[in-house]
Amino acid sequence: MPRSSIPAELALIGIGAGDPSWVTLEAVAALQSLDVLFVVLKEDELDDLVEARRVVVERHRDKPLRTVELRDPPRPWRTASDYNDAVARWREQRLAQWSSAVASELSDGEVGGFLVWGDPGLFESTLAIVQELIRAAARPLTLRVIPGISCVHALTARFQIPLNRQGRAVQIAPARLLREGIPPGLDDVVVMLDGRQTFAHIHPGGLDIYWGAYLGTDDEILISGDLAEVAERIQGTRAEAISRKGWMFDTYLLRRRLD
Amino acid sequence: MPRSSIPAELALIGIGAGDPSWVTLEAVAALQSLDVLFVVLKEDELDDLVEARRVVVERHRDKPLRTVELRDPPRPWRTASDYNDAVARWREQRLAQWSSAVASELSDGEVGGFLVWGDPGLFESTLAIVQELIRAAARPLTLRVIPGISCVHALTARFQIPLNRQGRAVQIAPARLLREGIPPGLDDVVVMLDGRQTFAHIHPGGLDIYWGAYLGTDDEILISGDLAEVAERIQGTRAEAISRKGWMFDTYLLRRRLD
Repeated sequence: MPRSSIPAELALIGIGAGDPSWVTLEAVAALQSLDVLFVVLKEDELDDLVEARRVVVERHRDKPLRTVELRDPPRPWRTASDYNDAVARWREQRLAQWSSAVASELSDGEVGGFLVWGDPGLFESTLAIVQELIRAAARPLTLRVIPGISCVHALTARFQIPLNRQGRAVQIAPARLLREGIPPGLDDVVVMLDGRQTFAHIHPGGLDIYWGAYLGTDDEILISGDLAEVAERIQGTRAEAISRKGWMFDTYLLRRRLD
Repeated sequence: MPRSSIPAELALIGIGAGDPSWVTLEAVAALQSLDVLFVVLKEDELDDLVEARRVVVERHRDKPLRTVELRDPPRPWRTASDYNDAVARWREQRLAQWSSAVASELSDGEVGGFLVWGDPGLFESTLAIVQELIRAAARPLTLRVIPGISCVHALTARFQIPLNRQGRAVQIAPARLLREGIPPGLDDVVVMLDGRQTFAHIHPGGLDIYWGAYLGTDDEILISGDLAEVAERIQGTRAEAISRKGWMFDTYLLRRRLD
């Protein structure tokens, strides 16, 4: 079969949640076989994250890699009166930009990659946009999704604790759903990217927290203990780290003590 | 510092949920640096799993590796009148066996490893036993936990779906908790190792299922769709696969359709 009759492929490569050694062999092999790397730069993209992705590419790619930057349009302000419409337009712009880059930069038979922090299925929008792009594309494109070590597994590995307890459920929840506390019947909840530090505003009785920031990096911070005793220390540490580094990526597990 | 004054280390190495290429670089490096590998053989240990672990070792270890087998004592029958006591005794026997193997086979300054399917924090008992062993040991032992690609991330990668949906929680639950159906307020639940096929006994209205067996292996089976329409086909496929292979490892996501 001539190469041109093989559809182009898009590969979403989970590169793990921080430590460059959390990259899998499948991800390394995919990086080595890429023809083009699409680099998504969010409006407020952090230099540290761009640099960390660069390190992963440099370490595992021996031959040069053609790179195409996708710079996100400015996000609409949350306070705008037509916020929902504005977000819809913003999404369309992004999709149009990605579609046009893939159409012009990726030939049939080639593989184009997107590097994704952690796992492509967890708190990640790349998968949804790429699938929309594929549905709207004028030619067939295949998709490959490569799983990665998520910050959920990174957190429990660092604390050397199980994620789930015998006979019990564990929930991964957006912080917003915990504002009234942990729902009854649930004893274990993982929360990511909680800018409002919901853990410090719920009733701490009977709860332990396992809090990790910048997991797997040189800046990793781990604090755990009785939520009532450590919540304030976590808030202070978090604020200090943000002022020093300019950004924060944290994950925590709230776990009800069983007596 | 002389090597003998460095405590011995136990490394729990997550090797991913099936595909040998889901092993991380950290796991490969750990395998290469091991002095001893402790191989836990459950009473009904499956030849396929023993073989799969052997392949991982063989592929990533260039020099010979000393191996110590830990053969589980026979598990008490669930029907025994003193079942709880019998399980407690069984656990003590296991712990004693592991402790004595680590005491005699692992010298100070050495690293002993345990290979763990998927991630060491998810539906895995090795971590708890090893921590108990360390607490009870006559000398200091350090512990290292290496995260792995869990079957949860493997499942969503294979189906090319997100694990969590925007603004919603996702739960990882033992099948037993779903016997009455998915709890209200919850729209996404992952279930592992459900020998009773609970998915086929709950009200299927409004639910989709994404079911994967032997994920990441040559025998991988994926079935998805409206639960009302595919539940029977999954049961049939599952029964046929068990009779062919003699064992089953499956994982599924139940997802409420949002209209």
